[in-house]
Amino acid sequence: MSLASPAPIDDANAQALQRIYAARPYLVAVRPARELLPQLSEYTILHAGPPVVWEAMCGPMRGAILGAVAYEGWAADLGAAQALVEAGRVTLRPCHSLSAVGPMAGIITPSMPLMVVENREHGNRAYCTLNEGLGKVLRYGANDASVLERLCWLQQVVAPALHAALQRAGGIDLRVIMAQALLMGDEMHQRNVAATALLVQSLLPHLARTVPAPEPLGAITEYLTGNQQFFLNAVMAAAKVTMDTAMGLPGCTLVTAMARNGTEFGIRLSGLGERWFTAPAPMPQGLYFPGFSATDVNPDMGDSAIVETLGLGAFAMIAAPAVAQFVGVGGWAEARRYTEEMLEITAGRHPHLLLPTLDGLGVPTGIDVRKVVETDLLPWINTGIAHREAGVGQIGAGVVQAPLACFVQALEAFAEAYL
Amino acid sequence: MSLASPAPIDDANAQALQRIYAARPYLVAVRPARELLPQLSEYTILHAGPPVVWEAMCGPMRGAILGAVAYEGWAADLGAAQALVEAGRVTLRPCHSLSAVGPMAGIITPSMPLMVVENREHGNRAYCTLNEGLGKVLRYGANDASVLERLCWLQQVVAPALHAALQRAGGIDLRVIMAQALLMGDEMHQRNVAATALLVQSLLPHLARTVPAPEPLGAITEYLTGNQQFFLNAVMAAAKVTMDTAMGLPGCTLVTAMARNGTEFGIRLSGLGERWFTAPAPMPQGLYFPGFSATDVNPDMGDSAIVETLGLGAFAMIAAPAVAQFVGVGGWAEARRYTEEMLEITAGRHPHLLLPTLDGLGVPTGIDVRKVVETDLLPWINTGIAHREAGVGQIGAGVVQAPLACFVQALEAFAEAYL
Repeated sequence: MSLASPAPIDDANAQALQRIYAARPYLVAVRPARELLPQLSEYTILHAGPPVVWEAMCGPMRGAILGAVAYEGWAADLGAAQALVEAGRVTLRPCHSLSAVGPMAGIITPSMPLMVVENREHGNRAYCTLNEGLGKVLRYGANDASVLERLCWLQQVVAPALHAALQRAGGIDLRVIMAQALLMGDEMHQRNVAATALLVQSLLPHLARTVPAPEPLGAITEYLTGNQQFFLNAVMAAAKVTMDTAMGLPGCTLVTAMARNGTEFGIRLSGLGERWFTAPAPMPQGLYFPGFSATDVNPDMGDSAIVETLGLGAFAMIAAPAVAQFVGVGGWAEARRYTEEMLEITAGRHPHLLLPTLDGLGVPTGIDVRKVVETDLLPWINTGIAHREAGVGQIGAGVVQAPLACFVQALEAFAEAYL
Repeated sequence: MSLASPAPIDDANAQALQRIYAARPYLVAVRPARELLPQLSEYTILHAGPPVVWEAMCGPMRGAILGAVAYEGWAADLGAAQALVEAGRVTLRPCHSLSAVGPMAGIITPSMPLMVVENREHGNRAYCTLNEGLGKVLRYGANDASVLERLCWLQQVVAPALHAALQRAGGIDLRVIMAQALLMGDEMHQRNVAATALLVQSLLPHLARTVPAPEPLGAITEYLTGNQQFFLNAVMAAAKVTMDTAMGLPGCTLVTAMARNGTEFGIRLSGLGERWFTAPAPMPQGLYFPGFSATDVNPDMGDSAIVETLGLGAFAMIAAPAVAQFVGVGGWAEARRYTEEMLEITAGRHPHLLLPTLDGLGVPTGIDVRKVVETDLLPWINTGIAHREAGVGQIGAGVVQAPLACFVQALEAFAEAYL
């Protein structure tokens, strides 16, 4: 195989796209991580992005890890938690290494409930935590008593209720919801209003039959209806379970993951398996909440760019004019340009995820590393902007571009492996 | 005042638009019609559209009226019901005559629960029934035992539950939902997917606290989440309560209602109060469900064109590419042309109901009878297509244009009154 005669590459890419198109992600369960991931031993914490050591981690990810140690009861307080981590007693691994993904800091510990998304076409599974909501949350590095209390409520009350409802429902077809939500103004990264509403509508008739009312049903219903980003974690797992089917195809030049740990940005290439190609995480550009400015911004963070890897988020910006405004890129005409650029660097158009205002064209799916390097057009990502200090939380929303260096390295490694 | 010097007309129209823009429709209660409308005496039935006598009524409206008589228990069976109606024992009046609106046949009887929409700006109220769902339903003229049983369940189980939830919620702001739904692909006549989901999300945390689970809460939740047109009846009442504030302004040339009874199409003009200007109801054009054709079509029917009168439905077609397909108009580019035409015949752009893919322009609000007659552009309406025989039900969806004759008559009467 050679880059000059790309037929085998095109064949491999076509195979990858067929798997991506055929995926049928279903939300089927919510169970504790330790039950789902036997490899997740005690004193292990998963984090977002490519691998990163404690010493190199950014503020919010450190804050989240200390909070997670306290949540698990491995240390009595945050000071003791820090001592434990600095003594090397806690193993830190990327979520992606165990078929999981997490937004922002992306923390997963053994006691945390995970949503299980099953690909009924391919048989594989992917996992993501329950969305904590807004305000003080672990994923932005907050770790005080109120944060841990909320996590315990999710674990003890919400997770078993959702699990029972999902068993009664026989699983919920996420692709149907994703396709509908694209017709309803969501790009499913910074806006999940419609997708959340549709998922909640699917769950509630079952919850009403499996959870005692008025409580905890009332509080659980408020949690589900009060968080317009509840679906984000589900669509992340759906994108992960889809893109994983395209991983490790010999000669395939498509990107199977983009992820950031707040220090580095990393991508994976299908033909090169689980290897990461990294560069310093870029700074997002966007709009800040009142009182914050560019000097407060943490480098880009989170596994959520898996939705762009599938063709949603900034790739589907044209479907979500409200997001274009929220992330500061302008109106609908500008939103359209983002999607049109991403059409230049992708190999496919997803046949089930259609863009209503682009004549029903499918979202741009399957970033081809060759096209990125040739055109110098970099993948756009819609992102939440985190404060660089632990626990301050979200300070805005914006866009960020994947660094070119990741793609250059990946293409060089691909050439080395296959030429 | 003269049509040649239109300054007083423009002032009156501006005042009408200010009232329309300022309206704040809240869903506040669900109560039996006889409690809300003391004028609705026993043996009285309200119907859609302008006034029409029994002898002139179309098949589905007759079927619905006979079903309604049986539902009220005024006759033991449908044959006895027909004898009662033909003996002149039942008073038939338009919904619009009592601040109410109804989809398709639009039947309201004293025992039926009505949604109450209150305009918190102006203090007036409007009413609409609960949406029965799809399949065999009274509004399409079906009247067998299953239809009446469903109506009884809505009356005895659903209505009190919704009322209790609304009391706990303190009312629900419909304008917020309408504005959101326009960003989410609904035009709110033939598509209410997003609006229904948002309304259901607002109701459910309260229902969980006020209705016993698992039953009837489970069944009520299924009813609410299983009917994507549930919001239609709410938005009809919201449009009615809004347009009623513009009724009867001296010198105002804006249309305050468009409605059809399956025999005639009628409009009302602000400056001429409650008077109807009618013409034969036109035949809708569109797509038919399998097994049906143009020979099965009933002339256009229902009060639902009140949503176009406000600027939604076909006037907001550009917001709902999925509807453009459903009603057989084409894709997004074609949808855009419908809205652009309606911009030509309307006096205002609603400042709170914005079109995301038209640079945030407001929907075309306030049909000016002068512009319709001058330009020969007729109001478009997105409509369900009913079978011309009672009880067959919906056989398709399409578009229809208001007949020019209504507008010519209204303009002539206006000239007579004001010149």
